[in-house]
Amino acid sequence: MSESKTQKNPIVLLTDFGTTDPFVGQMKGVIKSIAPDAEMIDLCHHVPPQNIEVGALFLRKSVEYFPDGTIFIAVVDPGVGTERKGLVAKSGQFFFVGPDNGLLSPCFQETDVTEIRLIENSQYQLPRVSCTFHGRDIFSPVAAHLFNGVKLAVFGEKTEKVVQLDLLNPETSERQIKGKVIHIDRFGNIWTNISLESLFLAGLNKSMRNVSLKLGNCEIRGIQSTYHSETNEYPGVLVINSFDLLEIAVPDWSAMERFELKLNDKIEVIILTD
Amino acid sequence: MSESKTQKNPIVLLTDFGTTDPFVGQMKGVIKSIAPDAEMIDLCHHVPPQNIEVGALFLRKSVEYFPDGTIFIAVVDPGVGTERKGLVAKSGQFFFVGPDNGLLSPCFQETDVTEIRLIENSQYQLPRVSCTFHGRDIFSPVAAHLFNGVKLAVFGEKTEKVVQLDLLNPETSERQIKGKVIHIDRFGNIWTNISLESLFLAGLNKSMRNVSLKLGNCEIRGIQSTYHSETNEYPGVLVINSFDLLEIAVPDWSAMERFELKLNDKIEVIILTD
Amino acid sequence: MSESKTQKNPIVLLTDFGTTDPFVGQMKGVIKSIAPDAEMIDLCHHVPPQNIEVGALFLRKSVEYFPDGTIFIAVVDPGVGTERKGLVAKSGQFFFVGPDNGLLSPCFQETDVTEIRLIENSQYQLPRVSCTFHGRDIFSPVAAHLFNGVKLAVFGEKTEKVVQLDLLNPETSERQIKGKVIHIDRFGNIWTNISLESLFLAGLNKSMRNVSLKLGNCEIRGIQSTYHSETNEYPGVLVINSFDLLEIAVPDWSAMERFELKLNDKIEVIILTD
Repeated sequence: MSESKTQKNPIVLLTDFGTTDPFVGQMKGVIKSIAPDAEMIDLCHHVPPQNIEVGALFLRKSVEYFPDGTIFIAVVDPGVGTERKGLVAKSGQFFFVGPDNGLLSPCFQETDVTEIRLIENSQYQLPRVSCTFHGRDIFSPVAAHLFNGVKLAVFGEKTEKVVQLDLLNPETSERQIKGKVIHIDRFGNIWTNISLESLFLAGLNKSMRNVSLKLGNCEIRGIQSTYHSETNEYPGVLVINSFDLLEIAVPDWSAMERFELKLNDKIEVIILTD
Repeated sequence: MSESKTQKNPIVLLTDFGTTDPFVGQMKGVIKSIAPDAEMIDLCHHVPPQNIEVGALFLRKSVEYFPDGTIFIAVVDPGVGTERKGLVAKSGQFFFVGPDNGLLSPCFQETDVTEIRLIENSQYQLPRVSCTFHGRDIFSPVAAHLFNGVKLAVFGEKTEKVVQLDLLNPETSERQIKGKVIHIDRFGNIWTNISLESLFLAGLNKSMRNVSLKLGNCEIRGIQSTYHSETNEYPGVLVINSFDLLEIAVPDWSAMERFELKLNDKIEVIILTD
Repeated sequence: MSESKTQKNPIVLLTDFGTTDPFVGQMKGVIKSIAPDAEMIDLCHHVPPQNIEVGALFLRKSVEYFPDGTIFIAVVDPGVGTERKGLVAKSGQFFFVGPDNGLLSPCFQETDVTEIRLIENSQYQLPRVSCTFHGRDIFSPVAAHLFNGVKLAVFGEKTEKVVQLDLLNPETSERQIKGKVIHIDRFGNIWTNISLESLFLAGLNKSMRNVSLKLGNCEIRGIQSTYHSETNEYPGVLVINSFDLLEIAVPDWSAMERFELKLNDKIEVIILTD
């Protein structure tokens, strides 16, 4: 009857709710009221407001670090209260709950989704559902009931058609990649949508030296293995960050401030001939 | 001897301490040292500094989402170290610990308080109490001992007279409500102190269309059920938010920036004749 | 075989990662995957970026509030990926995991360190270690294995020579202390590196009245026991804060804004003759 493997695993929350308001706290109250044994872990609540792409990236790149059976609630939900559907799914060894707006789709694509259901059964939602806060009134109760062993089939109809989001898709041609800034982290480091894999495909060699990135009048050559500048030749350093993405940093300072870059700015990389 | 029903229920923390300092972490260390089995949930730590009214609102509107037996520690405490009293109480199915400055009083008023005690017994506080951080040195140990089954009567004398805070009290006359901005959330949405209930009392009909709110030269008419603008006629939308309060929003933008409103600014609502 | 006393105690995290990114969430996923029974508590993640001194202060001043057996992971790590070592240690009744850059050293100095080991054994790290995020790939797994009962000796060679950080070392002479601003908290209160102990050593008497601090043209005399101004004579108040440090505050406002002070600004205190 029950998905018993989920019993001991955490419920992990990812939202764009921030922490200035008691939104996340209320979600946890709802979960705790339904599933007293559930342990909750915050993945991140500072996804930029309504930025589905960054939310999807954070989720996709974090899933692998959690134990099998983990239930992820992800809520970046500009369409709350409209016709957009809610989803509950099993993908790989994980469970996912959230809006059908592309947020979950990269996880579905890459962790082998086996079952996606629409959230329809109001019996497993709060008795009174607001129009503006489905994270609390729908997604949290669904995750808590899932934790308690309620089967996926109970929540609603199976679906195969979900909104797809194409994450990390820079324009790649031979020896050239046209990407963009997708995130700026707490340290002012600039994350691009250019993955290590796409760099190798475009001709990066093992030394990682044959790469050039131009920012205005500046050029940075070569990818380093740490944030410490190995040379004073360049105004910043390139690293492959812990998300396997090309990142621009400035040692002991902020690349965002140094280069005055912002979200969605274009980033172009040239792969040099040796 | 013990209030055994609290044993499995969480200790929930609400403060204005923010998260830039280790204040909340130290409170959790104190709780964990006394009550190793306690599970702690953060409701919110970003109540605007020393803003008792917003703290009281967040607490009052969140309590119902937590399981019976939950112990709430609430610390928004501009008077720390002065003559203000500390309180421990049972109200409805919940327990409350915090300063006697009005922060807890809306919960007492609305969840049927049964017993309020002064915190006097130093045996259930840290051996050394600082003058500036009762959250750590007094309220956390009291909550932890409460969790462990210590009875309310042990902490101090019963009291009936506590500081009262009158939450959400807009001036309401027939077809007119004069309220104010009480909070601006992460999305720049503007929360007013005008509840759905007060709107109905002033003559709002079920369609929720017969309402007008003026902001400078702008007017918004009608309350919508989602943040998505149903018309381009108005510069913003009115919704009833997940706290059951009238809220001003601007789709895909920030109402705070659009209307340049700030905390305590006056908000006037007219109920139109149909 | 196992350090069984740690079994029930929390793993406490202190970092400079902030909460805008999923870094801390990923660390918790790693810990949970290895040690399903571990309970994790956030001490603070907003240590100013790469500020080892503030990180060390927060940790040193918080340790005593946690139960014996607590495992502290501390990551403020500007040298990540370079030659700096990783440490795992037992000091007093606590365990510590983090970089060898001075961050842990004040705890070692003051809680009676008994054993410090280098983190060398890759068997207790993630299979793939990034160059930029040892918090996730090395320190979290080490802490989780420690929680599971793995002995210190298994992680690597014993060491006695670790990087030392001299915390809170104002220049003290008779009746004068030259210190600096080491932190500004959420309330705009200014923390100095001048401890109550150093004030007594310099001649402060029990009344705490015989002290004078000058800020530009302003002078504040006497240390108060609360944030509430007892007199209008001075533009701010001096208190001993909950970290036992001299702090400058302005009632109902921000000392940072009032006095325009910033990190590392000099603070000079004169002990007056009675």
